[in-house]
Amino acid sequence: MAQPPPVSPLAVPLPELPPVAGVRLGAVAAGIRYRGRPDLVMAELAPGTTVAGVFTRNRCPGVPVDWCRAGLKGGRARALVANAGNANVFTGRAGVAAAKAVAEAAAALVGSPARQVFLASTGVIGEVLPHQPIVAALPALHAGLDAAGWEQAARGIMTTDTFPKAATRSARIGPAEVCINGFAKGSGMIAPDMATMLCFVFTDARLPPAVLQRLLERGVADSFNCTTVDSDTSTSDTVLLFATGTARHPRVTAADDRVLAEFRAELSAVLLDLALQVVRDGEGAQKLVRIDVTGAANARSARRVGMAVANSPLVKTAIAGADANWGRIVMAVGKAGEPVDRDRLSVGVGGVWMARDGAVLADYDEAPVAEHMRGREIQISIDLGLGRGRALIWTCDLTHGYIDINGSYRS
Amino acid sequence: MAQPPPVSPLAVPLPELPPVAGVRLGAVAAGIRYRGRPDLVMAELAPGTTVAGVFTRNRCPGVPVDWCRAGLKGGRARALVANAGNANVFTGRAGVAAAKAVAEAAAALVGSPARQVFLASTGVIGEVLPHQPIVAALPALHAGLDAAGWEQAARGIMTTDTFPKAATRSARIGPAEVCINGFAKGSGMIAPDMATMLCFVFTDARLPPAVLQRLLERGVADSFNCTTVDSDTSTSDTVLLFATGTARHPRVTAADDRVLAEFRAELSAVLLDLALQVVRDGEGAQKLVRIDVTGAANARSARRVGMAVANSPLVKTAIAGADANWGRIVMAVGKAGEPVDRDRLSVGVGGVWMARDGAVLADYDEAPVAEHMRGREIQISIDLGLGRGRALIWTCDLTHGYIDINGSYRS
Repeated sequence: MAQPPPVSPLAVPLPELPPVAGVRLGAVAAGIRYRGRPDLVMAELAPGTTVAGVFTRNRCPGVPVDWCRAGLKGGRARALVANAGNANVFTGRAGVAAAKAVAEAAAALVGSPARQVFLASTGVIGEVLPHQPIVAALPALHAGLDAAGWEQAARGIMTTDTFPKAATRSARIGPAEVCINGFAKGSGMIAPDMATMLCFVFTDARLPPAVLQRLLERGVADSFNCTTVDSDTSTSDTVLLFATGTARHPRVTAADDRVLAEFRAELSAVLLDLALQVVRDGEGAQKLVRIDVTGAANARSARRVGMAVANSPLVKTAIAGADANWGRIVMAVGKAGEPVDRDRLSVGVGGVWMARDGAVLADYDEAPVAEHMRGREIQISIDLGLGRGRALIWTCDLTHGYIDINGSYRS
Repeated sequence: MAQPPPVSPLAVPLPELPPVAGVRLGAVAAGIRYRGRPDLVMAELAPGTTVAGVFTRNRCPGVPVDWCRAGLKGGRARALVANAGNANVFTGRAGVAAAKAVAEAAAALVGSPARQVFLASTGVIGEVLPHQPIVAALPALHAGLDAAGWEQAARGIMTTDTFPKAATRSARIGPAEVCINGFAKGSGMIAPDMATMLCFVFTDARLPPAVLQRLLERGVADSFNCTTVDSDTSTSDTVLLFATGTARHPRVTAADDRVLAEFRAELSAVLLDLALQVVRDGEGAQKLVRIDVTGAANARSARRVGMAVANSPLVKTAIAGADANWGRIVMAVGKAGEPVDRDRLSVGVGGVWMARDGAVLADYDEAPVAEHMRGREIQISIDLGLGRGRALIWTCDLTHGYIDINGSYRS
């Protein structure tokens, strides 16, 4: 595209991230695809750092996703290397060799096995990652790593993101105060290619890999996995959580240990914060949409109903047009294929019920609904009246901006 | 919307439909929602007419869908009444009473039980069908029914369709030549509300309801159920097949009887013709897209992979932009959740393979691909390299027109 899109109207300011003991990071311009901007990010992690990860469920995952999945088995990480501009997806054996060359170069710099270097790439699909410029840029990048390099790193992984995305929280684990920092990218494109999402979270907590993995899976289930921009699951989606273990707190061996209560909550808050920043930067997004589903047969069913509504092009275009079109919401609920009793279904917008028990409420107050629909943050309530299953799903509207970004010819 | 959209660039001319013995039909302006255009269609069917139907799988179906499902149990039909402008969906008991009033009025005119009157409505959701103007208009409509009323009927069910849709074929059943006529509507809106699809097919063949039902289900599986415009399953989708039984051919008791071979083929041709006309009138459509999936684990898996590609906003916007973006096709194949081996997957466009066995073909000829992408009809090939499952799926591109039609505020 000739013109970079303007910053999303839903953008939030970049918070200031404090250092996390055991993490030094930074970014450089390696010239992978873009000119004159950082596109290569590295983080060095203290010896003993544990790692957890969740990845795309797409059956055609990128080479870095395969690499990270294999590396997770060891549970230890010494470095992260992420690049923008090339996704290294569908690149066959040459792509695997390129990823390995990058990991080996980084491993030599930090003094670890290559398998303890975690990789992430987003950008164009089907072109082998040019590993030479990356390998050439790594020594200087490594030499300049800094405990304060968060903003640089958050900017370095952007593709057509319109703003950098980061979040920070702290939590007590027993006597220790630990920090949780994260940054993420998604949902724009320059190539353009498919939207991809990366998220990296760092903490100085001291947690074994199995505990970390369980905490991450739980946190992702209620954050990233409850968001959608356009229903297209990327081949590169990656969330990695690194724990340097430098904090001094009692040993923890189980994810549901009470001592982790605050940490769990704050980790979830970081993940949800970052997930919502990604939705706020959804391609063409003008409105952030929250969908509360209650009364479903169970939680899984509630999630599917919410996702059917969040992915419905007719619902999303109606929201873009500030139209509280509850009929389309009924349609989307019905098409989800989940247990639904039309005559017990209720739909509301902005806290006002518009349809209840299978029919429109003739006398609902339209003024506050119309006012709500003109705002930037839209809230939809769906009560199925069947059981106790609930879900909270997040999406954005579907606008001309989405067509502009994705319908222009790749240059 | 203030302006009706221009006629789809993919429109096809209305064919001339011959009479079908035992069918008389027509349309009038009943003033249900639109002014100065026919919006109420009736067909009277000879005594002994059998009927088959398939309906939306949406769990919040419209009142007419419930009514037709109940009526199908009798297997007999004497009339069809269809209106545009109001879908009679999510209207509670008042909507049921309105549908019953219309059916009873039509039944009195043709001298049949109300259950032998089949109903279909599309248009706005959540408003009770105004049955008084319909009941008032029926006697004059009935008096004017004509064996040549096909075009009138095809036009009378349109909502924001940009062209009327009909198809005709003939087939031999033993010594008899029978006729198959059909007309359909979909995918525009005026209200605007959700896209809905109606299809009515008529034949003079003499077939018992069970045989008819089986033939229809088979035909729909490979036509309407292999098409998608925007993934939003309407609450009103209805396909009805009426057989007046006036043709003189041997009795048929099984759908797979050899004597029906030609009839089956021609019925399928009518259904596919009408289904593709609906896709050609897809909201905002500029290109008709055919997706050939081969080498899947089985036919069902092939269909799901094809549908995942056909419903991917990123694939559809790329096609709108004349971009042969095979990376997005790989993504959509991978997200389908079906068995896929990335390293055996091949993707082609316009008959040229671009990616094979998990990697791009560096030397494929780009010129014919680029030329193909600029055309009105796009063909995508996906070979999974796993088994013998195949599917043929049809869709259209996703353009600014879709956002215009669905994102403007309901007036």
